[in-house]
Amino acid sequence: MDILLTNDDGITAPGIAAAYKELVKLGSVTVVAPSDRMSGAGHSITVFEPLKCEKVNVAGLFEGFSVTGSPADCVKLALMEICPQRPDIVVSGINHGANVGINVYYSGTVAAAMEAAFYHVPAVALSYAFEEPCDFAAAAKYAVETFDKVKNLSLSAVININIPKLAAGKPKGVKIVPQSTMGFQEHYIKKTAPDGTLLYQLAGGDHRDVDVPCDTLALTDGFITVTTLGFDMTDYKNMEKLRQINW
Amino acid sequence: MDILLTNDDGITAPGIAAAYKELVKLGSVTVVAPSDRMSGAGHSITVFEPLKCEKVNVAGLFEGFSVTGSPADCVKLALMEICPQRPDIVVSGINHGANVGINVYYSGTVAAAMEAAFYHVPAVALSYAFEEPCDFAAAAKYAVETFDKVKNLSLSAVININIPKLAAGKPKGVKIVPQSTMGFQEHYIKKTAPDGTLLYQLAGGDHRDVDVPCDTLALTDGFITVTTLGFDMTDYKNMEKLRQINW
Repeated sequence: MDILLTNDDGITAPGIAAAYKELVKLGSVTVVAPSDRMSGAGHSITVFEPLKCEKVNVAGLFEGFSVTGSPADCVKLALMEICPQRPDIVVSGINHGANVGINVYYSGTVAAAMEAAFYHVPAVALSYAFEEPCDFAAAAKYAVETFDKVKNLSLSAVININIPKLAAGKPKGVKIVPQSTMGFQEHYIKKTAPDGTLLYQLAGGDHRDVDVPCDTLALTDGFITVTTLGFDMTDYKNMEKLRQINW
Repeated sequence: MDILLTNDDGITAPGIAAAYKELVKLGSVTVVAPSDRMSGAGHSITVFEPLKCEKVNVAGLFEGFSVTGSPADCVKLALMEICPQRPDIVVSGINHGANVGINVYYSGTVAAAMEAAFYHVPAVALSYAFEEPCDFAAAAKYAVETFDKVKNLSLSAVININIPKLAAGKPKGVKIVPQSTMGFQEHYIKKTAPDGTLLYQLAGGDHRDVDVPCDTLALTDGFITVTTLGFDMTDYKNMEKLRQINW
């Protein structure tokens, strides 16, 4: 199996190294990942300037391609220029922090997998609920084990896998759950710079409480969550209301 | 009506000025927009550094808040800190370039509207198919006229409005159409920097041909397109396949 591996925490992040160690057991792994951490990159792409790309050796573990762009840029560039042939799958992660609920919109990890899906390449996003200290080796093992069970399903959707916090013990099991659409509890910390400019630092970011079965709830409850994500954002129900208007 | 106006081309872009001129006829407009052009910003947000925010006067037309962040940052900050009260609607645009098909993922314009929807504030994204020379005044007039017809529908979805090229004459009408999921025809132009680093500039970006009714096709055919976009990305159909596995 030819695997393209990327992430949004950057090519030297511990999560991608842990994912590499597990994935290399399943096939040949090409790493193309951002040179810097790109958390919160969402599905941004670089349009006004060229991407710089260089081969780097990461901690003696792998040789990969470091790209001065977003996770989605990395996948575009890998598929069009770097990979010698179309990979069988694109894996993104393992991210330091969960990507459930509306966080899938802010997530560079999920966007990289989505970008692969635009090219009809099967793709999976792997994330691990934030905890300190964290055990990326264990999280990557659980994530790739989960991925290994779904990899032959030929799904026409991105597979979004999240690993719960592990400090309290191993995951309680696997839950197949929809994405929560509940927003965040967040706020800004306001400061004034020496020159008088107002500065606002985003803080918080926990999901608002939910009580229906969904990814955020199952993950908090200690389950590995698996969600399939599509890329038709059309809301067909509301579209009918628009059709009632006399245009 | 209290309107929050933002965009992704930056607070001094001609598109937002044209939108302002039309929207101010409908109510009170607060402008909170990126200090720089943020095309391709997608749903990125700024997590590692504070946003700088300053009041600016734009060409004698309006006083607005200029923010060193993405369009989604601007909406978050406006809703939590800047707007004296919750706006009745968030308008994003008018963007220089269409936001149809999978471009809705790369679009900061659409992301800003989506961010408002996360806060349950009605939102609309306005875009205008790229042409040179362009007529933002006419495009904004058509866009706000279209918006004005849907603004009281209480839709629980983002309304994505695109104005076709206008060089050949006025739009042929309005079409309510789903988002196309067809990818782009794109490529990289490869160069080598003086220090030997490989540089890749993204080029192209036309949608691949489609022949089913959708936003890309209707816009190319000269219609104003209106699409409702939701934010549950769950692909329920493929999720059933996952449920067949013996977990």
